[in-house]
Amino acid sequence: NDTLHDTCKFGTGQRWGSGQTETGMCRLSLTDSDKEARDWFVQKTKSLGCQVTIDAMGNIFAVRPGRREAPPTFAGSHLDTQPRGGRYDGILGVLSGVEMLQVLNDHAIETEFPVGVVNWTNEEGARFPIIMVASGVWSGRIPLERAHQLQEVGSGKATMKSELERIGYLGATPASHESTPMAAHFELHIEQGPILETTGQKVGVVTTAQAYRWFTVEVKGQEAHTGTTPLSNRADAMLLTSYLIVHSHRLATMHNAVATTGTIEVSPGSVNTIPGCVRFTLDVRAPADETLDKMESDMKRDFASLAAGEDIGGLRSGGTRSKPLTVTWQTDAMNAATRFHPECVDIVRASAVSVTGSDSLVRDMTSGAGHDSVYTNLRCPTSMIFVPSKDGISHNPVEYTSPEDCATGAEVLLQSVIRYDRL
Amino acid sequence: NDTLHDTCKFGTGQRWGSGQTETGMCRLSLTDSDKEARDWFVQKTKSLGCQVTIDAMGNIFAVRPGRREAPPTFAGSHLDTQPRGGRYDGILGVLSGVEMLQVLNDHAIETEFPVGVVNWTNEEGARFPIIMVASGVWSGRIPLERAHQLQEVGSGKATMKSELERIGYLGATPASHESTPMAAHFELHIEQGPILETTGQKVGVVTTAQAYRWFTVEVKGQEAHTGTTPLSNRADAMLLTSYLIVHSHRLATMHNAVATTGTIEVSPGSVNTIPGCVRFTLDVRAPADETLDKMESDMKRDFASLAAGEDIGGLRSGGTRSKPLTVTWQTDAMNAATRFHPECVDIVRASAVSVTGSDSLVRDMTSGAGHDSVYTNLRCPTSMIFVPSKDGISHNPVEYTSPEDCATGAEVLLQSVIRYDRL
Ligand SMILES: NC(=O)NCCC(=O)O
Ligand SMILES: NC(=O)NCCC(=O)O
Repeated sequence: NDTLHDTCKFGTGQRWGSGQTETGMCRLSLTDSDKEARDWFVQKTKSLGCQVTIDAMGNIFAVRPGRREAPPTFAGSHLDTQPRGGRYDGILGVLSGVEMLQVLNDHAIETEFPVGVVNWTNEEGARFPIIMVASGVWSGRIPLERAHQLQEVGSGKATMKSELERIGYLGATPASHESTPMAAHFELHIEQGPILETTGQKVGVVTTAQAYRWFTVEVKGQEAHTGTTPLSNRADAMLLTSYLIVHSHRLATMHNAVATTGTIEVSPGSVNTIPGCVRFTLDVRAPADETLDKMESDMKRDFASLAAGEDIGGLRSGGTRSKPLTVTWQTDAMNAATRFHPECVDIVRASAVSVTGSDSLVRDMTSGAGHDSVYTNLRCPTSMIFVPSKDGISHNPVEYTSPEDCATGAEVLLQSVIRYDRL
Repeated sequence: NDTLHDTCKFGTGQRWGSGQTETGMCRLSLTDSDKEARDWFVQKTKSLGCQVTIDAMGNIFAVRPGRREAPPTFAGSHLDTQPRGGRYDGILGVLSGVEMLQVLNDHAIETEFPVGVVNWTNEEGARFPIIMVASGVWSGRIPLERAHQLQEVGSGKATMKSELERIGYLGATPASHESTPMAAHFELHIEQGPILETTGQKVGVVTTAQAYRWFTVEVKGQEAHTGTTPLSNRADAMLLTSYLIVHSHRLATMHNAVATTGTIEVSPGSVNTIPGCVRFTLDVRAPADETLDKMESDMKRDFASLAAGEDIGGLRSGGTRSKPLTVTWQTDAMNAATRFHPECVDIVRASAVSVTGSDSLVRDMTSGAGHDSVYTNLRCPTSMIFVPSKDGISHNPVEYTSPEDCATGAEVLLQSVIRYDRL
């Protein structure tokens, strides 16, 4: 826990309390503060006797030799954060991996095969807008070129490749499961939801992860003067966008999914000009792929109707009939539901019961968030360990998991890796 | 017309056709291109024999001496544009003033008292977010300090004062109707609405201008993870904002007003974080002040109810009940309805009938937009002249008024100034 909070000096975020550790984090991927955290990780794992490999996506693999040569069993997660994120999301998984190395050394434990810790690049997708992009490339699911060309969100012009070069983390090793094979991947992560806290349980054994799709929707209307253009003469892209966001929420409610608009750009962005163009994102998730198929087709059908001026669900009632607009869709990400590896899931469950001392403190869970483990699971046995999140809050500076829960998670991670190595 | 289009080389905007003059304008106030247009205006009016005064708001007054000393009769408007504006809004009024000086010189006409042309600073409010701010200071309605400290929209840090200094237009003369008195103010402007085009008439005699209020609304919810946070556990500031924008449109429909959201900022602005804070603007207008009183109190009451989770007009039906949010209001501008000066209105009407040759080509009108004339009207007899806008479109690169209509407007402006001078 001390080490974890100490490394939060790299990219300290917004203060939310007066305590020393009561700040969030702002460590966007491949920024200077991310470089500092990476440099610390490389130096620290080397000092613990690891061989460190950096691949073409800046993924950092630190490997501690075993008795015999073979693909290592990894603990892994990510050191990047949201722009207003907390101290645990991702960081806990990597730091617990480092702690695992320390404990193995302290007790002079030899593993049968190598074990390692991996820091995956840009898991959050907050700066370069594809989540888990670097484990995605490693798995072969996302082309290296596409990832390298990803431009940072906002007005900046930097790409993943230019930033990897700038901070010195464009490694020579190909970013691929073939060049850096893994025996297995275990990821300790905060739950980011309210379930463990509500039930009073200590460890989540993650059996599945929900499916998600990301879209960018572009609404085109007509720029015009706010004072001189009657409501009936308008093609107001911001008003239509408001209908669409409300409708996406209604569809999510109906389908038992979640839908969120996290970013929006309005053009030209002047108080007295009716917006002619709005671009916004939609992040849509559900446990089953079929639910997202339904969501996507319903949204596409209904957005087009609303743009054409039709009414759906009384949204337009009480409003003024205006000119038609257009809506275009871009799919930014489309990930199927994940079922983690049964053997790894069993190992995590056994470790969790052993560490907590009770079946009743452990539960099987579905991950609401995406994780690098979703991609490693395509190429090697994988599973995840959840620990409680205070108030179910994450992606927020106040994100909190108690030192005791962090420690429990780290012990389960250590045991899981050792058990897999023995297996 | 040639001169008008020639000066559009200062801040040329987006191309919309292949013709030489088929571009819009992007000449934000106090930028380098605005400085170029100002330098041209100063040099040109001096070459036409004017005395040029620049005041502490960068307003430029060019005065042509008359037979006797007295406050001059002015033609005036503005040379700044929207970020994606056109070639006529404001520009036509100033350039027609310059043309008036040229015609007076060409025909060696002596006026009884001085006549002048004024270029008002930052009429659009697009860069520094108070419209007509510099005529507002001149009229005594807006404090100089407040105007000078206005920060540019977006992430830049420049203020009106720092930009006035930077481009060399922070004049020594106090920005005040007392230091630079006017006998009268006539403004030729494009209609920016569809009425003259629809009726086939040529000149609008502007008798009134509608009231308007600008607000910034801040919605505060809670940042949280898009994938792990159930809809019921959310306080989604973007979803509430969507309800509010739809509701403001419904209220505007009901009250026969207009309401527009032209800018929006979402924080933290990450695809997979539920927005914790959204700030958006509301530009609300109506011909009568009482209508805006009603709009404002209805919006304030209903926004608070919607934030608290209540339903209004079925907006929340089909959605998920979530956590409460808060809404706070800031009033950025509040301008009463304007009634222009009867004598000036009569003069414009007489001039328009004389130029067009027919009563039936002229109509009395209300201005939907605000204009510098709204502020000059507080301190000197004022009225305005409208000419047709193609498709009623302005604040858009395609904004268009035919050369013939521009010429007609310029002739009416010239006659109005001369008639007032004689009067
Ligand atoms: N775990 C986590 O917050 N990852 C970000 C990817 C996602 O949005 O699900
Ligand atoms: N005429 C004009 O477009 N002025 C801008 C001020 C307003 O928004 O009404």
